[in-house]
Amino acid sequence: MFRSQYDTDVTTFSPQGRLLQVEYAMEAVKQGSAVVGVCSATHVVLAALKRSFSDLAWHQRKIVPIDEHIGVAISGIAADARVLTKRMRDECLQHRFVYGDAMPVGRLVHLVADLCQKCTQRISRRPYGVGLLVAGVDESGPHLYQTCPSGEVYDLVGMALGARSQSARTYLERHMDEFSSASREALIRHALWALNETLASAKDQHLSAENCAVGVVSIGDDMRFHLYEHEQVQPLLDACAFPKSGGTATETSTEQAPQNVTDSDEHHDATMQQDTP
Amino acid sequence: MFRSQYDTDVTTFSPQGRLLQVEYAMEAVKQGSAVVGVCSATHVVLAALKRSFSDLAWHQRKIVPIDEHIGVAISGIAADARVLTKRMRDECLQHRFVYGDAMPVGRLVHLVADLCQKCTQRISRRPYGVGLLVAGVDESGPHLYQTCPSGEVYDLVGMALGARSQSARTYLERHMDEFSSASREALIRHALWALNETLASAKDQHLSAENCAVGVVSIGDDMRFHLYEHEQVQPLLDACAFPKSGGTATETSTEQAPQNVTDSDEHHDATMQQDTP
Amino acid sequence: MFRSQYDTDVTTFSPQGRLLQVEYAMEAVKQGSAVVGVCSATHVVLAALKRSFSDLAWHQRKIVPIDEHIGVAISGIAADARVLTKRMRDECLQHRFVYGDAMPVGRLVHLVADLCQKCTQRISRRPYGVGLLVAGVDESGPHLYQTCPSGEVYDLVGMALGARSQSARTYLERHMDEFSSASREALIRHALWALNETLASAKDQHLSAENCAVGVVSIGDDMRFHLYEHEQVQPLLDACAFPKSGGTATETSTEQAPQNVTDSDEHHDATMQQDTP
Amino acid sequence: MFRSQYDTDVTTFSPQGRLLQVEYAMEAVKQGSAVVGVCSATHVVLAALKRSFSDLAWHQRKIVPIDEHIGVAISGIAADARVLTKRMRDECLQHRFVYGDAMPVGRLVHLVADLCQKCTQRISRRPYGVGLLVAGVDESGPHLYQTCPSGEVYDLVGMALGARSQSARTYLERHMDEFSSASREALIRHALWALNETLASAKDQHLSAENCAVGVVSIGDDMRFHLYEHEQVQPLLDACAFPKSGGTATETSTEQAPQNVTDSDEHHDATMQQDTP
Amino acid sequence: MFRSQYDTDVTTFSPQGRLLQVEYAMEAVKQGSAVVGVCSATHVVLAALKRSFSDLAWHQRKIVPIDEHIGVAISGIAADARVLTKRMRDECLQHRFVYGDAMPVGRLVHLVADLCQKCTQRISRRPYGVGLLVAGVDESGPHLYQTCPSGEVYDLVGMALGARSQSARTYLERHMDEFSSASREALIRHALWALNETLASAKDQHLSAENCAVGVVSIGDDMRFHLYEHEQVQPLLDACAFPKSGGTATETSTEQAPQNVTDSDEHHDATMQQDTP
Amino acid sequence: MFRSQYDTDVTTFSPQGRLLQVEYAMEAVKQGSAVVGVCSATHVVLAALKRSFSDLAWHQRKIVPIDEHIGVAISGIAADARVLTKRMRDECLQHRFVYGDAMPVGRLVHLVADLCQKCTQRISRRPYGVGLLVAGVDESGPHLYQTCPSGEVYDLVGMALGARSQSARTYLERHMDEFSSASREALIRHALWALNETLASAKDQHLSAENCAVGVVSIGDDMRFHLYEHEQVQPLLDACAFPKSGGTATETSTEQAPQNVTDSDEHHDATMQQDTP
Amino acid sequence: MFRSQYDTDVTTFSPQGRLLQVEYAMEAVKQGSAVVGVCSATHVVLAALKRSFSDLAWHQRKIVPIDEHIGVAISGIAADARVLTKRMRDECLQHRFVYGDAMPVGRLVHLVADLCQKCTQRISRRPYGVGLLVAGVDESGPHLYQTCPSGEVYDLVGMALGARSQSARTYLERHMDEFSSASREALIRHALWALNETLASAKDQHLSAENCAVGVVSIGDDMRFHLYEHEQVQPLLDACAFPKSGGTATETSTEQAPQNVTDSDEHHDATMQQDTP
Repeated sequence: MFRSQYDTDVTTFSPQGRLLQVEYAMEAVKQGSAVVGVCSATHVVLAALKRSFSDLAWHQRKIVPIDEHIGVAISGIAADARVLTKRMRDECLQHRFVYGDAMPVGRLVHLVADLCQKCTQRISRRPYGVGLLVAGVDESGPHLYQTCPSGEVYDLVGMALGARSQSARTYLERHMDEFSSASREALIRHALWALNETLASAKDQHLSAENCAVGVVSIGDDMRFHLYEHEQVQPLLDACAFPKSGGTATETSTEQAPQNVTDSDEHHDATMQQDTP
Repeated sequence: MFRSQYDTDVTTFSPQGRLLQVEYAMEAVKQGSAVVGVCSATHVVLAALKRSFSDLAWHQRKIVPIDEHIGVAISGIAADARVLTKRMRDECLQHRFVYGDAMPVGRLVHLVADLCQKCTQRISRRPYGVGLLVAGVDESGPHLYQTCPSGEVYDLVGMALGARSQSARTYLERHMDEFSSASREALIRHALWALNETLASAKDQHLSAENCAVGVVSIGDDMRFHLYEHEQVQPLLDACAFPKSGGTATETSTEQAPQNVTDSDEHHDATMQQDTP
Repeated sequence: MFRSQYDTDVTTFSPQGRLLQVEYAMEAVKQGSAVVGVCSATHVVLAALKRSFSDLAWHQRKIVPIDEHIGVAISGIAADARVLTKRMRDECLQHRFVYGDAMPVGRLVHLVADLCQKCTQRISRRPYGVGLLVAGVDESGPHLYQTCPSGEVYDLVGMALGARSQSARTYLERHMDEFSSASREALIRHALWALNETLASAKDQHLSAENCAVGVVSIGDDMRFHLYEHEQVQPLLDACAFPKSGGTATETSTEQAPQNVTDSDEHHDATMQQDTP
Repeated sequence: MFRSQYDTDVTTFSPQGRLLQVEYAMEAVKQGSAVVGVCSATHVVLAALKRSFSDLAWHQRKIVPIDEHIGVAISGIAADARVLTKRMRDECLQHRFVYGDAMPVGRLVHLVADLCQKCTQRISRRPYGVGLLVAGVDESGPHLYQTCPSGEVYDLVGMALGARSQSARTYLERHMDEFSSASREALIRHALWALNETLASAKDQHLSAENCAVGVVSIGDDMRFHLYEHEQVQPLLDACAFPKSGGTATETSTEQAPQNVTDSDEHHDATMQQDTP
Repeated sequence: MFRSQYDTDVTTFSPQGRLLQVEYAMEAVKQGSAVVGVCSATHVVLAALKRSFSDLAWHQRKIVPIDEHIGVAISGIAADARVLTKRMRDECLQHRFVYGDAMPVGRLVHLVADLCQKCTQRISRRPYGVGLLVAGVDESGPHLYQTCPSGEVYDLVGMALGARSQSARTYLERHMDEFSSASREALIRHALWALNETLASAKDQHLSAENCAVGVVSIGDDMRFHLYEHEQVQPLLDACAFPKSGGTATETSTEQAPQNVTDSDEHHDATMQQDTP
Repeated sequence: MFRSQYDTDVTTFSPQGRLLQVEYAMEAVKQGSAVVGVCSATHVVLAALKRSFSDLAWHQRKIVPIDEHIGVAISGIAADARVLTKRMRDECLQHRFVYGDAMPVGRLVHLVADLCQKCTQRISRRPYGVGLLVAGVDESGPHLYQTCPSGEVYDLVGMALGARSQSARTYLERHMDEFSSASREALIRHALWALNETLASAKDQHLSAENCAVGVVSIGDDMRFHLYEHEQVQPLLDACAFPKSGGTATETSTEQAPQNVTDSDEHHDATMQQDTP
Repeated sequence: MFRSQYDTDVTTFSPQGRLLQVEYAMEAVKQGSAVVGVCSATHVVLAALKRSFSDLAWHQRKIVPIDEHIGVAISGIAADARVLTKRMRDECLQHRFVYGDAMPVGRLVHLVADLCQKCTQRISRRPYGVGLLVAGVDESGPHLYQTCPSGEVYDLVGMALGARSQSARTYLERHMDEFSSASREALIRHALWALNETLASAKDQHLSAENCAVGVVSIGDDMRFHLYEHEQVQPLLDACAFPKSGGTATETSTEQAPQNVTDSDEHHDATMQQDTP
């Protein structure tokens, strides 16, 4: 914690060639509630845990549609995400107006990434403290991208961001071979199972129609991004057949999830300590 | 109090990915006098405690109309609130001029939030030290929103901000199930009872026509924001049947308020110490 | 005095959510010589103690007319006040030119307050170190406002600013019930008696035609701001029947002022120490 | 000398509400050589001690004409004074061009003061380190003003600025009752006697046609500012009948000056130490 | 690590005439995964190790085409590289539009270098933390250039950048005499053998069709940059006849690589410690 | 050397009202090689010691013509001088173009001084580290001015700037009564004798046609500035009859120079230590 | 090395009137590889040691043509040199376009120097860390200039810059009398002999056609700058008859070089330690 002198000004490299401010901004991404994305050869699915800052507030949106064919899951500073997603919507609209068709997903993602990169090089702004999972389809098929505060972009088959996401990533890595050929329903189940892992060590929390959102977009005739929230989520959750609250969530999930989850649980304990959502 | 180096410049992330200046601005919101908002399926009610900086001054306005269908309750730095609310009025006027109808509530709230977010990312300005409860109706029904110095927005069924507001939030959380179907009169009583909780531990203070304001907006033919101040508030207070000053306020309120208020009183003592209104 | 790190830059919040630079600017207001304002249902009266920085200089103006119907009493940094009052005169002129009638008092006051607020949020300027008492009449009647370095505005029935003003405020609070129905002459006497209180503990100083100015504006046919200085003030002072210099000023004033002034004297001693005019 | 943190940036208030940089700029004024101004009902007289930075240099001008009817005496940083006086000349020219007559003295002085005030509020510039005594006549009679680095303006009957000016001010205060009705000649003598006081304690210095300048402007037909330098000053000095060098200057002056000068000498010793011209 | 005061601000020289911030940016280049370039009299070949930040992500592109005749291999901060390569593509397009033919390679490289240099001299931006190997052909033949964060440009016959690149450079230096007359196939083998050296000390890593990309551009009729990725790379790898995993990679490579590789291995150990990819 | 806090930023006054950065810039002037100027009623003469930074370099120009009637001698930072003299040439050209005649000398000097003053008040620039001796004639006769980094201007009969210039000033002060009526030849001799004083204590240095330049401008028909360099200087040096190298220069000069030079030598020793040319 | 406070910001003078940042930039010049320039009455010759940052890179250009009649040798930061030389080429082109003939050498040099000076006075940029030797001919004959980071310009008969250049300067000083009348061939030999001195103490380095470049420009019919590199240099080197590698270079050179080289060798040892090329 005493890495002074190089970490307060984003325009300064440390002697090791690192941009510490950017790395700290990535910590802000880790503090958001968990989001998960998975991509098959035909579909992309986003799943997100909606966190409510108070019992009196509606859960905040964690998955937001950008254009007909693109949706985004958010982890990090909500106000920064709103600014970026608004810009994404404007770019898509502008593209439709100018070219008469939908913005390719990769192009949109790189526009966002350029916005993020600029904030890491100019002294007048801080980096955006938000990570996005961008799901969309275009002529080249379905795509799942991740953007970072650093301006970097990753092309993914699956990813989990936010608090306690390490356990979700462990799940995804174990099942990634099954994604490519998975059906729409199977892919949604994978996303929800992975999301459920992030709650496995928290006794009184479990996925519900209230705290969970799912977004799906597919190739084919209907290339539209569908967002499932509230009661629409319940059938999807039911299809997962999570263990109901009884016994510790971790034990129960171990029984139904693939055999190697116990191994991932050990990672849980480590990540629990460093994540403070 | 020794969190130096990361907390003086709003554009700098701490190693934990936090923006401490924004968090400090939120403390400014806590120093304002209490405001309460509640939302039913048909109405939104704001109630505010007006604080006078001197016996010689008129009480400052804490609830201000923005447009015919929208009103705002303020907690935090009054001068910042004036700037934001003035901007909100301009935006509503502009919207009526351009589109010929009323600004949707959510759109207005996000405009304010974007203004707030910008101040957290540019080095030339400090964050706005004010929180707003925005009440309004539009075609999608009644809405209660909260804006924060961080630029975040919350969609709410009820909320209390400002000094000693924890006790009001406790009240609201206990009664939130009753809000949705509450009548106009019942909803006003809930707002005033919650507001009264913030005074419960202060012996010589109680709600009066002088220190209290109420704002109501409803769906239906008359979608106008009504502000009740001075003598107009008295009937509303009378309807609450608060205990008159006699005995300690805390004890008395316990008798008439729901049974679990004593539990909330324990929270009082904690919040009393950190709030210094 | 060791509140370092948060108090040198106006754009920075302290961890308690305070803007210390603004609070220090308010100290500059306290260092000005005393000004008093009182408002009845029909009149507003300003009274000010003119301080001379040398026997060789004419007393500086402390009450200045802004427009026909508005005048201002100043406490704080004179150069800042000159800039603000000049801007107020320009705004009034502009309003008469555009709308053909007099600027409403409240609107003018909020323009000033916005100027003050901007200086508290932008890093390129310090806050204005001046407080104004603004007296005026418009269609909604007589008004007395106070503006602060913070950009806050107060709507008042009476107020005293500047060095040793606490004793004047104590006087005003004791007599505030009499203001509303007071005649023009009675209201002027109240203002001068309150102003006299600020001198009560200074042995060789007393109000005189030289060091004192009075401004009056009334509703009715003649809605003009009248400024009384030099020999014009003497009749007003004579009407107050202050005790002539003989014995200590404090004792004498106690005899003629309301009975509870002795109580206020105890406050004197405290405020004397912190005020260093 | 350890008033750190609040005194290096002019835009920052100290916790006592002071602008220390402005106060330090006023110290620069005290380091200039002495200038004196006196004002009667009909005339204004400026007198200045010209200091030469080397025997090889001509004495610098300390009294400069601004317009036909206005002249200025300078104390402080010469380069700053040149910038301000040039601006004053431009404004007078502009006024004559636009309005066809002479700039009122007070208006010109307030233009200068506004320039000075701006430098105390913007972070991009330091305050002007110069004080001006402005002498002029207009339709409202003769005027003597002083401008300060703070942007403040004083309306004066007499004043002395610069090194060892305290003794001159003491002289002026003792004789100020005689100024109003003084003749042109008498007023010049007062100015030179006051100026001579600033040299009283310096053994080998005395007023001479070389180191002294006098400026006079009067009401009446000839409202022009007359500047007396070099040989023109000698008759004015002769009329003063100063004691020639012999014995200490202080003693001698005591004999011819009014009886209470010995009292002022005690002030000399104090001010000698803090003035380091 | 205590080289304070001169290394945090890029605009400041150290007393030794060094720009430490630029040197730290060069460290960022060393942290990228390895890239290799070799140039013969007729061909230029780029080879790169694609690193995946997660098993779930596709390997990031390390070799990107710029124009028909130019390609670039990247080492360092990916987001900075994306900004620079995008600018390069724009410049090539613009050149084709204006002049009707392909941008000369050297001219393009110097445009990039000027962008980099500007960031080392202006205070508002940090240096770009990326190094590029630029391969292209134009009328003057094949070219291999390296650009640096400092804005410097090198004209090369071979080069390796990034993590553990010292061992690759050692390989290139030993074989550089063979490059000039090497066939297309031989040159590709040299590039891959050099790239393989960077993995020699890492037990479980070896070049594969997944983690490796090759780019080739040649003079002659087809002056196009060809990029080989995924399955296209396998034949090229097969042609190298690397030892399959079995025994330590270092030992095996020693057997098949030129005789002096053991000597280079000693360099490995040194560079391993300072490289922390 | 511990005058911290007030001396690094030119826009900041020290508590004593001083601008230390400006004072340090004046030290830069003292580090230049010596220049001398003398002015009679009919002529102005500049003489300068040209210092070569290497035996391989031509001596730098120390006296430069500005316009037909004006020349300048430079002491301080050469690059700053080049910028200022270029600006002076532009202003003279512009004046000739607009008004059809030569720029008055005083006007040109004040333009330069204003440029210098601006740099002492704006935070974005440092003061110019150069002093100029400006020699010229116009309708009001011959003029010798000195400009300073502070923006101050001095009107002179003689002056010496730069390293070891104190001894030259001592010479000038002793002979200044002879300047006014001196002939062209006599005035040149005075300038060279004074310049020679600056070398008096340096054993192996003496004025020569190589290291010395002389500029002369006179009233009368030919009001042109004549610059004598190289072989043109030799006759002027010969006319001075300096002692040839033999014995110490100091002793020899004492014999031929006026009798009071020995007295000045004592000053030498003092100034030698503080000057480090 | 503890000259803090005055040396990090180029806009600040030290109390001794020095601009330390500029001095540090000059250190950057010393770190470049050596360049030499010599000027006769008819020719100017540049010679430079090309340093390769790797065996794999072509030697960087150290002598670059600017216009037909001007060439430049570079020592210092290569990227800064590229920016400056590009600007020089633009200015020459512009001059040819506007005036129809070649830019005078001195004028071009002063344009560069002004660019350098600006960077030493404005806070937004660092000084250029490069020194140039500019060789050219124009109507006034052949010219050799040196520009510095400070913005200073020197007019030279010979000069050496960069690492170990002290020994070359010693050579040049010993032979400077021979330059003026030297033939083209003799002048080239002087330049190469001087350049060779910078390698004298490095055992395995000697001038070769690979690491050495020569530029020549002459008056007469062909006023073009000729650059000799690679095989073109060999005849020039052969004409110098340097001792072949055998024995220490220093000893050998002593035998063939003029007799006083041994004396210069003593300087070698001193300069070796401070130069760290």
